[in-house]
This record gives sequence, structure tokens and C-alpha cells, in this order.
Amino acid sequence: MSATNWPSIISELAELEIITDAVQLSKLSLDYYHFSPILSKKLNNKRANLVVRPVNEVEVLKIAQTCVKYQVPLTVRGAGTGNYGQCIPLEGGVVLDTTKMNQIRSLEPGLACVEAGVKMAAFDKKAREIGWELRMAPSTYRTATIGGFIGGGSAGMGSITYGQLRDRGNLQAVRVVTLEDEPRILELRGDDVQKVNHAYGTNGIITELEIPLAPAYPWVELIVIFDQFMRAARFGQALGDSDGIVKKLITIQAWPIPSYLTALEDYLPQGKHAALLMISQYDLEPFQNLVKEYGGEITYQKTATEATKGSSLLEFTWNHTTLHARSIDPNLTYLQTFYFTLERVEQMYDYFGEEAMIHLEFLRVGGKAIPAGLQLIRFTTEERLNEIIRYHEEQGAGIANPHTYILEDGGRKVIDPEQLAFKEKVDPYGLMNPGKMRAWLERAVSV
Amino acid sequence: MSATNWPSIISELAELEIITDAVQLSKLSLDYYHFSPILSKKLNNKRANLVVRPVNEVEVLKIAQTCVKYQVPLTVRGAGTGNYGQCIPLEGGVVLDTTKMNQIRSLEPGLACVEAGVKMAAFDKKAREIGWELRMAPSTYRTATIGGFIGGGSAGMGSITYGQLRDRGNLQAVRVVTLEDEPRILELRGDDVQKVNHAYGTNGIITELEIPLAPAYPWVELIVIFDQFMRAARFGQALGDSDGIVKKLITIQAWPIPSYLTALEDYLPQGKHAALLMISQYDLEPFQNLVKEYGGEITYQKTATEATKGSSLLEFTWNHTTLHARSIDPNLTYLQTFYFTLERVEQMYDYFGEEAMIHLEFLRVGGKAIPAGLQLIRFTTEERLNEIIRYHEEQGAGIANPHTYILEDGGRKVIDPEQLAFKEKVDPYGLMNPGKMRAWLERAVSV
Ligand SMILES: Cc1cc2nc3c(=O)[nH]c(=O)nc-3n(C[C@H](O)[C@H](O)[C@H](O)COP(=O)(O)OP(=O)(O)OC[C@H]3O[C@@H](n4cnc5c(N)ncnc54)[C@H](O)[C@@H]3O)c2cc1C
Ligand SMILES: Cc1cc2nc3c(=O)[nH]c(=O)nc-3n(C[C@H](O)[C@H](O)[C@H](O)COP(=O)(O)OP(=O)(O)OC[C@H]3O[C@@H](n4cnc5c(N)ncnc54)[C@H](O)[C@@H]3O)c2cc1C
Repeated sequence: MSATNWPSIISELAELEIITDAVQLSKLSLDYYHFSPILSKKLNNKRANLVVRPVNEVEVLKIAQTCVKYQVPLTVRGAGTGNYGQCIPLEGGVVLDTTKMNQIRSLEPGLACVEAGVKMAAFDKKAREIGWELRMAPSTYRTATIGGFIGGGSAGMGSITYGQLRDRGNLQAVRVVTLEDEPRILELRGDDVQKVNHAYGTNGIITELEIPLAPAYPWVELIVIFDQFMRAARFGQALGDSDGIVKKLITIQAWPIPSYLTALEDYLPQGKHAALLMISQYDLEPFQNLVKEYGGEITYQKTATEATKGSSLLEFTWNHTTLHARSIDPNLTYLQTFYFTLERVEQMYDYFGEEAMIHLEFLRVGGKAIPAGLQLIRFTTEERLNEIIRYHEEQGAGIANPHTYILEDGGRKVIDPEQLAFKEKVDPYGLMNPGKMRAWLERAVSV
Repeated sequence: MSATNWPSIISELAELEIITDAVQLSKLSLDYYHFSPILSKKLNNKRANLVVRPVNEVEVLKIAQTCVKYQVPLTVRGAGTGNYGQCIPLEGGVVLDTTKMNQIRSLEPGLACVEAGVKMAAFDKKAREIGWELRMAPSTYRTATIGGFIGGGSAGMGSITYGQLRDRGNLQAVRVVTLEDEPRILELRGDDVQKVNHAYGTNGIITELEIPLAPAYPWVELIVIFDQFMRAARFGQALGDSDGIVKKLITIQAWPIPSYLTALEDYLPQGKHAALLMISQYDLEPFQNLVKEYGGEITYQKTATEATKGSSLLEFTWNHTTLHARSIDPNLTYLQTFYFTLERVEQMYDYFGEEAMIHLEFLRVGGKAIPAGLQLIRFTTEERLNEIIRYHEEQGAGIANPHTYILEDGGRKVIDPEQLAFKEKVDPYGLMNPGKMRAWLERAVSV
């Protein structure tokens, strides 16, 4: 393989914003892979040769052409907040940073069309002006891009109503730039969007997305505390199953997890298990009745207006819980688990004790509210971590392993023939985010 | 028991609108009890002595005082569209018709306060002007009152998202006039509303209700046809479980039920099973993908604007299906069934054939979309009807028997101690809709 002619590439891209400064390159090559001690070791020295920041689709096409011409890897990056090294360029090459592609193309009741680099919170602010908002968003909502959420995320606040990103209807269409000999722009609509949905940017550069919106409610943020963990968990399930109460977030944290949320310490007394919630203001009264039924105590309540001023409870939930915990105890890592039932939650709670502190996020899967876990794990060794994973799986839980950067080894488990076929078509040279898609790696070996 | 002094009562109520004309009395004493051949025989000769039509709560208080003073039965009537003789005065007396109490007291995003006699469609028209609508409504939406829906109904369009009326949050507060020696106005809020929710007007006259609203969508009405019934049923379940597709109505009708909907015959070909649906206009594309997956064919599609002009598909669903079928074949009656699972639906479909033609309405129960049945039954004898009911129950289905006017013998099955206690308090003389609450009848015997 001949050495890449970087000066030539740089001069071809001269009209675009290019970053070559080593500090910047390092920053723009990495993400939140360090939540995993396993990935930390494997990925911390990976660097792009070059970062390019296109401002529109024409520039993206130009970058695609150049990468094909010089046969260099191209890795797309949104805000770089992924947790599994999704946007880390394993083989170096070009990182395409989408954050300057942040135009809202259209915004109407129910539907919007945005460029991939639009940040979710910024978008929501605009959408709420017309009474709508994103159906779902991760706890990195303030910084993460919509394209990155589709490329590497899965669920978040709102998922207790609308399910996951992969659910039919939650992404209506995408425009994708290919890495063929003559890069093209393709539009995928309806079920076809699954070809690139959660593909870690391995098969096309998403430039624009059509996303459905949800009616915007005045969300009230609340903390409810409980004496017993399973009481809190059952409350979460009951709230998830309460069809008459409109909600956006149901987070349950077993003590001592609340002790890591120091900014909220006034509302999280020693030894109590906590629910962090977002509830429609119109449903507060029935909500309070539910709290009463489960013996909870409301310690924090911010109206929608108050909540948007300061920082939102959202930023103490989902993987932000892990972030806060790790800032106090860097030996902590986490798992992602579909428990499916509360019985299994209880079993794991009893079995692991504080080695796997239970953090639940309720979300809809196939029409049903289920408890998913982002447990905090006291990390000792990789062997023990794998043992913990194995035990969960043996007991019938589903683990979406966050300690691998390989697409199929995380949540999906099996090869997606549709995504592979699409990659064969749009990225015939395998330049996009190389090393992440097992299907491609194995095909390369067998070809 | 001394004869009632009706002239005296009439003169006490002289300032109110009073109806004594026999034809009117007969009309205002009955409801749609005739859907049941069993109830038909039992109830067709029941008549009120007098109908009063109050225009406000002060007049309601006056009526309550008068009924207590003269110890005459009082039965509340909304639009009289109930199916089980709920508002038929078994012991005569006064019928209080609420239809002139039709003021909207307040209408704000998310919440409204209405008088009990407000008609649902009329309310929705107003609510939609500010972007909201009723969370749920029966297929008698155009004529039925909100108070009557609470007093005697259970679910309808919208229930696939918000569940049933009884679910916490779907009724926020009520004002109730009592029949004590000194009739009072009570306000019940939160869980306390369950005291009068679906109580057939046996324990208080609801004068005002606070109800939560849903964001109004532009609903598209569609008919999808299928070759196989179970395909249609599975499609219904899949749609119910599709968290990314916003919907309001999922009705599935096994052939030959569609043959009874003659006004829709152009869209309902011979031998095909049909789905009648209301889907958010914003989600039409993913919806079409789902139809494709299940091999359905869309034969009818009206946009929200077109649909509001003519008559709505709603009026061919829920118990309107029964209405249309009975207008062609008066020997038909129906059942109300919680199948809970599609396996049970299939079993009953195979077992009964056209004796129990399956009509499914999907609705959320405890957070999960389930198939409920309003099967059309080819009536032969009461014994056979009871046999059919028994068979369903033996196989694990839940039947809400629509062939009884007794509150507890319908859907509830057990005595509600809370409603009984409330009746003891607010209707100590047992004047309200006498003969309908088993708990009261049995208590009366044992006292
Ligand atoms: C504290 C914390 C909390 C988090 N909480 C959540 C959460 O609640 N839910 C959740 O799902 N995730 C969560 N995450 C993960 C991550 O923040 C989100 O998934 C986020 O949406 C990713 O967006 P991003 O712009 O940072 O994407 P990036 O990390 O930049 O990219 C993610 C993946 O998408 C690909 N990609 C990016 N843009 C494009 C494009 N235009 N075309 C094709 N591929 C593209 C990248 O190559 C990469 O593989 C969390 C992470 C952290 C650190
Ligand atoms: C063709 C057809 C279709 C139907 N579809 C549905 C359906 O989809 N879903 C459904 O749930 N029902 C359905 N029904 C039943 C009925 O139409 C509804 O429940 C409707 O909401 C009843 O409203 P109403 O004003 O007619 O009440 P009424 O029949 O007048 O009264 C119903 C009960 O409530 C009591 N009541 C009425 N007003 C008050 C008050 N102010 N205070 C206290 N008690 C009161 C009455 O005493 C009576 O017991 C259907 C009926 C028919 C004939």
C-alpha cells in the first residue's frame, strides 16, 4: 500500500475548513469511549490525519470524492458524544465533522427536515415555538447532533412514549452521500431508512433527515424518593403503564447511585432510592395519586418554565448518571440491559448488590413499557465484567454490550444483511469508518 | 307506600322545563337497550312519570330537593345512547335530562371544564380551535354527552393511546349534586372521582367535569382489507404496538361483518376482512410500510379535512358496527370481550364461525394494546347466549356482559365498596336510578 499523499488531499479540499492541529485532531478523533475501561485501552491512541468541517452537501460530496480518489478512510463525526468509540477512526484518515451543517430545512407541525449536524436542544427550542418538539432525545441533548443520534444512539427521554429510534415511524427519510467512484446523493424513505439507521456511519454520510415530531407539553420535572428499591421500580413500571398520565422520562436509581448526583443532594436523602421524572403539567394531579399509592415522597418539582432555565433533570439520567458517578469514582463503568421484567430486576438487585448498582430507564419496546438498565458496575477485571454479562444473559436479560466498538457485538448481536448490502453498494471500497462493521470484516476475509 | 303527589311535584318544579307528554316520556325513558334481546323484553315498558330539563346547577339542586322531599326515584339521562338500559327508570319517577346543561366552563391547552350535558363532537370542535381534542370518545360522539360517557361508557376512539375512562388521569374532577335531606354540591378530585365514574348515575348527579385533553392531530381515516382474518387481526396488534405511529382507532372486522356496512360497500369487497383506522397524517408513510408488511390493501383514505365533512369512519366502528348490522339483520346481538391475546381470538374465530362474527377494537389496558371484542352474535336463545358467554370465560376471555342492566353484572363483576359507601352518603334513601346497583340491592336486603 503506498503512502497517502496528504498534502495533495489537503490542497484538493483547500476551500473547506480543515483542521490539522494535533490537539484539535486528538479531540476530534475521540468520544466518550472512556466510559469503558476495555475500550479505553484499545482506542486512546487512535487519531484522524485530518478533520474537515463541511458547511453543506456540496462540500460533503467533494470530501467523499476526495476520499475515494485517494482511497483514505472517512469517519463521520457529529458531536462525538458516543460511548463506544463509534466515531473514533480506527485506521486514521479523514474525520468529517458535521457540526457546521446545522440548518433546519423545514419545520412544520408533526414533521421537520434538518441537516445532520443540527443540535437537538437548539432544534427543540425552535420547534417548541410552533408547539412541537423532538419525539425522543438522549441526555446529551444539549450538545449531540441529530445525525449522530441516528448514527450511533438508540433511545432517550421520550422513549417511554415513542419507543426507540429504530421503531418504524421515528425516522421518516434520510439523504445520504455515497463513497462510490462517482459519489451520489441517495434519498431513503420509509422502511428503507433502516439501511443507515444506527449503522455507525459505515454505509453513507447522512446529510439531511426527515424526523417526526411530538406535540410539546409543559413538562414538569420531579424527584420522588422511596424507602425500598423495588417499590421505586414498581412505581416506575406502574407509571409507564399508566395510559392516562402523559410522561417523557422515568428514571429509577437504586441507592447509592443518588449519592453521586451531588448537585441534587438536597433532594436525595441518604439511603433513599430515587425516581427522576418528566410529567405533563396537565397530569400532575393523577400523578400525585400514583406517588401516594406507591408510598413515594416528592422532594423536587420544577415547572416547565423553571426547568428550562437551570439545567434539566435529564442531565442526571440515562448515561449522564454514569458520567456523574464516574466523575466521583473513575473505577465505575456500566452495562446496558433489557431486563424485560421486574422479577429479573429484583433478582439482579439481590444477586449483585452494590457491584451492579441498578439504574433503570423505562422505555417502550414493541408497545410495552419495560425496564432497561444502565447499571453502574464496580469494575475489577475484564473477566469479571464478562462474567457479570454472562450471568445476566443466562438469566434471560438482554445485554447491549457497551464495551465493544463493533456494531453487531453491541446491541444488535446479529448481522444485518440489509445494512451490509447497502454498504456493498454505497461504500464498495470499505472506506467508511473501517473496522466497525463485523459483517464487512468477515465478508472481506471470505471474499 | 302512599301514592306520589305528582301535581304537587310539578308545581314545585314549575319554573323548570318539564315534559309530561306520553310520547316524549316514552322516548326519554329508553335508550339502546334493544341491542339486547334479553333486555328488550325486560325494559320496554319502563317509563318515567316526568322528565325535567334543568339548565344549570341551581335547577339541579331544586330537582334533587324535590325528589328527596317526595321520595321519588331520580334517574339521570344524558343523550340516552347507553346500550344496557343504564338510564331507563326501572321504577319510574323523575328523569333528569342534562342536555340543556351544555356550557363549556373553561377550555385551555390540556384541560377543560364542562357541564355534564355537553355533547362530545360539539366540544371537540371548540377544542380543536385551540389545538386540542378529547382523549377518547365513543362512536356515539356526535350525540352523546360527556356526563353520560362518564356515567355509563367505558372507551372508544383514542383508547388505543389513552386507555379507558377508568384509568387514572382520564377524568380529573367532578362536581356532584347529592340526594341528601339537604342536597349539597360536592367536588371530587383525583382518585376520588372513581366514586362516581361509571356508576350509572346511582350515586350523585354529575353537573360539571374536569377532563384532560389530547393534542389534536389531523387524523386520516383509512380502510385496509385482508384476505385472511388472522392477518388482519395481527396487523391490528402490530399497529397497536407500533410506538412510532400515532393512531386513534384500530377496528378489525371479520367477513361477513363488512357486508353490513352498506354505505362503505365500494371499499369493502366480498369476502375480505377489514381494518377501519384513524392514523396521524404525519405518520402515513410508516403506516403504509406496515400495511405492506402484513399484505393489506388500502381501499379508502380520507384526509382529516375530507373526513370531517362527510360522516366519519368512526360511525362504522365500536358499537356502531352492531347498529348497522342489526339494521340489516335484527336477529343479531353482540358481546363485549377482553380476549387479551390473539391466540384466544383465533381460537374463538375457529370455534364459533359465523355464530360469533369477530369484531375487534384495540385499546390500551394497563399500558398494553389488547384486542377487545364486540362480536356480533346470531341470537337464538338466551340459553345459547349464556353458553357462548360461558365458553369464552372458560377459555380465559373476560366478558363484560351487555345483556344486564345491573352495574356489577356487566363489566365490573365485583362490588365496588367505594361506590357503595359513596351512595350511602349521598343517596341515603336509595332514590337514584334504583335497581341498578347490586351492592345497594343486597345491602337493602341484609339491612
Ligand atoms: C453522558 C452521556 C449520555 C448519553 N446518553 C444517551 C442517551 O440517553 N441515549 C442515547 O441513545 N445515547 C446516549 N449517549 C450516546 C450519545 O451521546 C448519543 O447517542 C448522541 O446522540 C450521539 O450524537 P453525536 O452527535 O455525539 O454523535 P457521534 O458520537 O458524533 O456519532 C455517533 C455515530 O454516528 C455516526 N454519525 C454521526 N453523524 C453521522 C452522519 N451525519 N451520517 C452518518 N453517520 C453519522 C458516527 O460515525 C458514529 O458512529 C450518551 C453519551 C454520553 C457521553
Ligand atoms: C351505536 C352505539 C355505539 C356506541 N359506542 C360506544 C363506544 O364506542 N364506547 C362506549 O363507551 N359506549 C358506546 N356506546 C354507549 C353510549 O353511547 C356511550 O357510553 C355514551 O357516551 C353515553 O352517553 P349518553 O349521554 O348517551 O349517556 P346516557 O345513556 O344518557 O347515560 C348513561 C349512564 O350514565 C348516567 N348519567 C348520564 N349523565 C349523568 C350525569 N350527569 N351524572 C350522573 N350520571 C349520569 C345515566 O344515568 C346512565 O346510567 C354506544 C352506544 C350505541 C347505541
